[in-house]
Amino acid sequence: MQELKNRIISEGEVIGTHILKVDSFLNHQIDPAFIMRMGQELARRFESAGITKILTVEASGIVVATAVGLALGVPVVFAKKKKASTQQGDLYTAKVYSFTRQEAVDISVSSRYLTPQDVVLIADDFLAHGEALKGLVSIVQQAGATLAGAGIVIEKKFQRGAEDLRAVGVRIESLASIESMQPGMISFS
Amino acid sequence: MQELKNRIISEGEVIGTHILKVDSFLNHQIDPAFIMRMGQELARRFESAGITKILTVEASGIVVATAVGLALGVPVVFAKKKKASTQQGDLYTAKVYSFTRQEAVDISVSSRYLTPQDVVLIADDFLAHGEALKGLVSIVQQAGATLAGAGIVIEKKFQRGAEDLRAVGVRIESLASIESMQPGMISFS
Repeated sequence: MQELKNRIISEGEVIGTHILKVDSFLNHQIDPAFIMRMGQELARRFESAGITKILTVEASGIVVATAVGLALGVPVVFAKKKKASTQQGDLYTAKVYSFTRQEAVDISVSSRYLTPQDVVLIADDFLAHGEALKGLVSIVQQAGATLAGAGIVIEKKFQRGAEDLRAVGVRIESLASIESMQPGMISFS
Repeated sequence: MQELKNRIISEGEVIGTHILKVDSFLNHQIDPAFIMRMGQELARRFESAGITKILTVEASGIVVATAVGLALGVPVVFAKKKKASTQQGDLYTAKVYSFTRQEAVDISVSSRYLTPQDVVLIADDFLAHGEALKGLVSIVQQAGATLAGAGIVIEKKFQRGAEDLRAVGVRIESLASIESMQPGMISFS
């Protein structure tokens, strides 16, 4: 998606060779109209897949997932990052390690909102090492639902998080896929 | 907002007299089209206030804030709940106690995304004890920005979180305001 690549180049901040901050439109400040356009583009790529539900994980993935859900006319479910005192009942859970925060968290989804009848599109803002994505795929499998694929805003392809999943046939669509980066230089694939 | 009250009555789960779960459309599963209608209604109530920015806090407030920002055509900024390793530079911070999670967290906003020129509408999904709202008001004040008010989806009025702020003239609009509740019985004001 050219508009996204342009904004990554003009507004993104590369720290070292692995960290890309896009806080001006996605991860701290949000450009709502732009998020909606990205959601529409991800929805377009999966429009014939019979999606019944979008799955993501809090926090910054939620708006992208909601934009996709709005475009496809289906509900969004977001996995929660820890079991809060108001959650109860049967949960599907997965352990996810965050390289950004350098900690492992449990993510969970209530069995009420993901069923064997669902055809699930996972949506997220970033794909790096693929930890969150693998956790969400595990939750889809635990639910006995059908996985249609994953729609990602920015894939840092050099961190190879999608390789294992693509190798087993999971369809992963990214709006911008970065081959390599360093301050002042971002190469898209 | 009648549609919201109807859905709280039909889908909400009251636990004891203080906890209301609306996980089927707001806090775990999201109904994107309904969120957009709620955002439009909050935007309508503040449409003449000259809003330049929506402020909220992660996680579940973000979609509501994004819906309001989309309707008003302005950016959304969400306070982050802990300082991640990719955040740096000047931050406005406030300590917020969550009664749901029974822990205090620091919330922070980069000074880059909130300036003295901004007219800020705070948006959030719930208002209970008002801890998050007071933290966000503090961040607006630290930035030297103008506070236009707060737009809330569900206010649990009996927990009196808005009283101090309304007493000092802060405009707080809620789409549904609950006077009292117990399992099987919710009274709106």
